[in-house]
Amino acid sequence: MTILIDDVLNKLMESVGPVGPLATTVDGLKSGDSSSEVKGIVTAFMATQDVIEQAIALGANLLITHEGTFYSHQDTKHTLLNDPVYQVKQKLIDESGIAIYRFHDHLHRYQPDGIMAGLIKELGWEPYINEHQPAAAMVTIPAMTVKEIAEYIKQKLGISFVRIIGDLSMTCTRIGLLAGYRGGGDMCIPLFEKENLDLIISGEGPEWETPEYVRDAHHQGKEKALIILGHAQSEEPGMKHLAKYLEASFLMIPVHFISGKHSFQLV
Amino acid sequence: MTILIDDVLNKLMESVGPVGPLATTVDGLKSGDSSSEVKGIVTAFMATQDVIEQAIALGANLLITHEGTFYSHQDTKHTLLNDPVYQVKQKLIDESGIAIYRFHDHLHRYQPDGIMAGLIKELGWEPYINEHQPAAAMVTIPAMTVKEIAEYIKQKLGISFVRIIGDLSMTCTRIGLLAGYRGGGDMCIPLFEKENLDLIISGEGPEWETPEYVRDAHHQGKEKALIILGHAQSEEPGMKHLAKYLEASFLMIPVHFISGKHSFQLV
Repeated sequence: MTILIDDVLNKLMESVGPVGPLATTVDGLKSGDSSSEVKGIVTAFMATQDVIEQAIALGANLLITHEGTFYSHQDTKHTLLNDPVYQVKQKLIDESGIAIYRFHDHLHRYQPDGIMAGLIKELGWEPYINEHQPAAAMVTIPAMTVKEIAEYIKQKLGISFVRIIGDLSMTCTRIGLLAGYRGGGDMCIPLFEKENLDLIISGEGPEWETPEYVRDAHHQGKEKALIILGHAQSEEPGMKHLAKYLEASFLMIPVHFISGKHSFQLV
Repeated sequence: MTILIDDVLNKLMESVGPVGPLATTVDGLKSGDSSSEVKGIVTAFMATQDVIEQAIALGANLLITHEGTFYSHQDTKHTLLNDPVYQVKQKLIDESGIAIYRFHDHLHRYQPDGIMAGLIKELGWEPYINEHQPAAAMVTIPAMTVKEIAEYIKQKLGISFVRIIGDLSMTCTRIGLLAGYRGGGDMCIPLFEKENLDLIISGEGPEWETPEYVRDAHHQGKEKALIILGHAQSEEPGMKHLAKYLEASFLMIPVHFISGKHSFQLV
């Protein structure tokens, strides 16, 4: 049976549930032809130059990504047309014919959020979920210190460092998890009080917002802490999880997750 | 001679030059009485709980900050009124009577930008300035590798780590400097080509923008690199520099810069 790219894209939309397709979205097919037969699928956080090259080498012709290809949320290219990095990347996309499908907004609208579900699965924290809120998940884990949690996360997610505000020796049970760019003050600060949290674990957010709130809380003697994973580090597990879902849905098609190795070097 | 808080605030506005006071700004007196006599001045990146306590202990009654006190750029408090961290901090501000003056937009409109001037001074790179642009400074330094530059910056700014994308052994001379939250793609990406930069050194910006552009450039074999200092780390030197300016302007008033020690712990 021939599976078309359209068949895979339709499958992805099945789990969006009653929300249905969004009227305004950054999601969609950014390159390639949706009526082509699928040879292989790759999922990734982002279509970096390296990820695209690896996908092509694996024989995949459908690359499903969470973030845009050209370094902005809206993924506009008009300011980049004369940029040599853009030009090399666009040429590779055009010449290979690879289909790149952005799957951001709709994956976040899976119930529960597909990115959050992947993060929780990778952390092995499914037994500890109290509640899935639209932008955050509340978990209550057996008591661990901030440092123990940080080491546990690094090992589970395979990441090289996390950034922390608060007391490393503080014991935590009640945690709020927020993936991606949901680490800002509007999202995180009210949760500490409302959900009686010891710790927030987030992807990325402005440095003068939640980190400074937690710094003040800690200085006031309140037992609050923050662990920042990094944006890609918090969302890659969701895309890895999506690859497993597609593998189970299309048994005859090779499906791979490729990590973009998004970590920063520290000096 | 009695110096009033108003006198100090008027002095700060002198160097704004022909721009004059901005019609719309986050700047202004957020607490205290501008007709009070100045007993002592503190400058800081942000009025953290710790910084306010230190300022009071030093006998200062005017605290000049770059960022807002309550964890957002617009510094709105309405969502925080029932928050215990906010309440403790607000009580300290009210009971001490300390004047907090936000000095963000106008300091960035000094010519050159007061924050950038402080960063360059602290780095000892005044001899190497090619151009001050409104949001960035271009410098050409004697050849150093990315790693050497990172180590040099850490030592000069007294910071514990920087985050890097690119080849640590790459030699750089042509650098673009962007302080604060000017590390985004719109600001940084065009500069690499337009200004023929080897390296951008920035404060903070979205992780999926400039870092991923530089990751792609590096993967394509282009000699480009990025060093991310941290937001506070990139702007504190400007506030330190401002303290020196005020000290020279008001010889009889004690003026201190207080570092908020904004670094993250790494695990």
